[in-house]
Amino acid sequence: MSPPDLEAEADQRVQAEDLRDAWTVLDPTDRVEGFRALSSGEAEQFFLEISALDRAHLILGLPTIEQRWWIRALAPDDVADVVQEAPSDERSKLMGLLDEATRREVNALLAYAEDEAGGLMNPRFARLRPEMTVDEAISYLRRQTREHVESIYYAYVLDEHQMLVGVVSFRQLMMARREAKVREIMNTELVTVHAEMDQEAVSRVFAEADLLSVPVVDAQGRMQGIVTADDIVDVVREEATEDIQKIGGSAALEAPYLQVGFIEMMKKRAGWLCVLFFGGTMTVSVIGHFQDRITQIGYLETFIAMIISCGGNCGSQASTLVIRAMALGEVRLRDWWRVFVRELGAGFALGAILGLLGLLRIIVWHHVFEDGGAPMYGERYLLIGSTVAFSVIGVSTWGTLVGALLPFVLRRLGLDPASASAPLVATLSDVTGIVIFFSISIAILSGPMAP
Amino acid sequence: MSPPDLEAEADQRVQAEDLRDAWTVLDPTDRVEGFRALSSGEAEQFFLEISALDRAHLILGLPTIEQRWWIRALAPDDVADVVQEAPSDERSKLMGLLDEATRREVNALLAYAEDEAGGLMNPRFARLRPEMTVDEAISYLRRQTREHVESIYYAYVLDEHQMLVGVVSFRQLMMARREAKVREIMNTELVTVHAEMDQEAVSRVFAEADLLSVPVVDAQGRMQGIVTADDIVDVVREEATEDIQKIGGSAALEAPYLQVGFIEMMKKRAGWLCVLFFGGTMTVSVIGHFQDRITQIGYLETFIAMIISCGGNCGSQASTLVIRAMALGEVRLRDWWRVFVRELGAGFALGAILGLLGLLRIIVWHHVFEDGGAPMYGERYLLIGSTVAFSVIGVSTWGTLVGALLPFVLRRLGLDPASASAPLVATLSDVTGIVIFFSISIAILSGPMAP
Repeated sequence: MSPPDLEAEADQRVQAEDLRDAWTVLDPTDRVEGFRALSSGEAEQFFLEISALDRAHLILGLPTIEQRWWIRALAPDDVADVVQEAPSDERSKLMGLLDEATRREVNALLAYAEDEAGGLMNPRFARLRPEMTVDEAISYLRRQTREHVESIYYAYVLDEHQMLVGVVSFRQLMMARREAKVREIMNTELVTVHAEMDQEAVSRVFAEADLLSVPVVDAQGRMQGIVTADDIVDVVREEATEDIQKIGGSAALEAPYLQVGFIEMMKKRAGWLCVLFFGGTMTVSVIGHFQDRITQIGYLETFIAMIISCGGNCGSQASTLVIRAMALGEVRLRDWWRVFVRELGAGFALGAILGLLGLLRIIVWHHVFEDGGAPMYGERYLLIGSTVAFSVIGVSTWGTLVGALLPFVLRRLGLDPASASAPLVATLSDVTGIVIFFSISIAILSGPMAP
Repeated sequence: MSPPDLEAEADQRVQAEDLRDAWTVLDPTDRVEGFRALSSGEAEQFFLEISALDRAHLILGLPTIEQRWWIRALAPDDVADVVQEAPSDERSKLMGLLDEATRREVNALLAYAEDEAGGLMNPRFARLRPEMTVDEAISYLRRQTREHVESIYYAYVLDEHQMLVGVVSFRQLMMARREAKVREIMNTELVTVHAEMDQEAVSRVFAEADLLSVPVVDAQGRMQGIVTADDIVDVVREEATEDIQKIGGSAALEAPYLQVGFIEMMKKRAGWLCVLFFGGTMTVSVIGHFQDRITQIGYLETFIAMIISCGGNCGSQASTLVIRAMALGEVRLRDWWRVFVRELGAGFALGAILGLLGLLRIIVWHHVFEDGGAPMYGERYLLIGSTVAFSVIGVSTWGTLVGALLPFVLRRLGLDPASASAPLVATLSDVTGIVIFFSISIAILSGPMAP
């Protein structure tokens, strides 16, 4: 038998685990109730795990005394996120819960967009003066840690105008002679980001430089705060999520899948589908335009679906590869010509492989299946086979080029390259794919070689 | 006029910038040459920026003395990555460049897969004993920093069996009474990961707990090393890249787009396209099967492309949303029923919107355009319109369900849900989409209401 306190602890752990599992299906009142039933240790851990949106709703559902306690447990950058997620009429109430100094800091952060370096940064960082000795620096940092500085792993050296002049790691301070000046041991080759820099660009700086934190400076070079790598982990995940959702042809959901309401979900998804549907109706006119010739030649309508899906597949592949390469900074706008040449070759080579498969398929089917007693495609089966093969090469090359270049066009227009979604590229290459197929068919099958 | 040393420095900076820009198009010899022309400061920064693969090639191209210098500049986990990227016959040569102690550490790391916590971790971390005083701990850490410990931001408290019993942040040590025992101030509520844990799961731990580093333990609870948030930034980017490339219908490239050779690129892309092409040829048989009825009824072939692209678009949308929600841990295998119900509703609602658009389009076209003097679709235009509308509802619902559930099926089979690519879902819903369309058409247009 286990002693009672251990049992209570096990109960507690089960409770927190249960709350985590049920979270997405609970209504706001049940969430608050479940949260208040946790022990303070469990509640604190739980509170730090959930998103800013969930924190905002949770805090607003609590009695005022508890509100004050929970919002003050957060660092200023996290408070700013919570305030931004709260309904606009509740924001001033939340700000009123803060002490004067934190409120000033949070206000400064709210001036930046959520997805800029300034919106991500923590304004509390460890600061030193260049003329301090190492010994003074260490005891000065020691005092700063009592004032809720988030991180003392790097200390930033500011001159009298708050300009960032260098950085020392705590490790360097520990290893240096005690009487050396901070100025002598600090690094002056600094990686910094501007407060208005987009978070995607900030995440590239982190990925390239392998740093745990980066100082944020304003246009005058005055230090404003630090962004730490744990925030960047979240940014990278968010940005990838947005790109993937756009590539799939919907707007970015901006919340976990199961937490988005049905109406909200429809709004995010129906828009692009309607645009694509109108694009798709163009195929009706195009096929209608060729209809008489198709009936004359025979068999062509059976290949329509195969030919256009082939172009769509090649296009989806090319566009996702280019979109991702752009997001990672591997491919820039000026590389468009290299990508064009490369994808022209790739599209043609892939088309040749698939076209050959198409030809083989027609030859095999012709000999194996029958259409009213005679071999399936009649005497002209090799001509029909060649028509299909050349059409596949044509639509694959075209689809690949459309998919590869559309992200460049979108970026050039100042739009998000990820909007070159797989369905959009497929729809764009559908219409042209049909024109390519019927033009080649008519040229080969009703030309001089036709019966 | 600027003094000569400043000019030289500017030249130097231009050189490093040029090398970065040209890197992807340079051949191995030019890369080595360009790298050796950099000043030592620039070269060091450049070396830390490039990927493990590039580092491996660069080191192998240098004279032996420089090889030793550059490989020793790396932390053991980075050395292990370089060794893993090098051709197998060069690996023992690279290992021979290391000092005895590092070689042992690197060998231990190589026992783990590159994408496990053990393959990501750094085996050098700051360690303390629980019975030390704070004062002893601080000076002990001070000595450890001289021995290349990567990070002293957290110090890990190990008992005599190397079992992890607690963690103290440097900040806590600095704030504590000097004569307190480490045991009294350490945190014992530990977030740890197992050495064999997959890197995607490790990145979720970081995202949830907002930590700068996490200790790695073996099956017996003995501490093996630490994973830091800067490594996780890279992991999150890599995993998202793989998912996006799979969603687009190619195999993961595993290298920057412009650095993948043409043949290698074809191998990654042709496989799925061939599989999808064979899937696509099934539409030829299906349309062939219905051909006589289609000709009898008239107009139907003009709608084929529109109807199936509609199903493909709905499916791509649903599958990418579910794939991403799974990768983020928002949706688990056991949630399949909730997703099914949700997507059944979503697919039907989206289909209803699109079906209505389709009906409107036919009514408008009928009255605006002519086919041989008479209104376009003849007397039965409302019947044709309803056929299209019901078919769109059918294929949208079906495409959405296929797209939403395929990731669950793949995960259940132990495969990567991201393989439910947009082109695969589109191809799967093409065949069934055609069957749905023709079945509905035949039921409505050659049924009792037909002329």
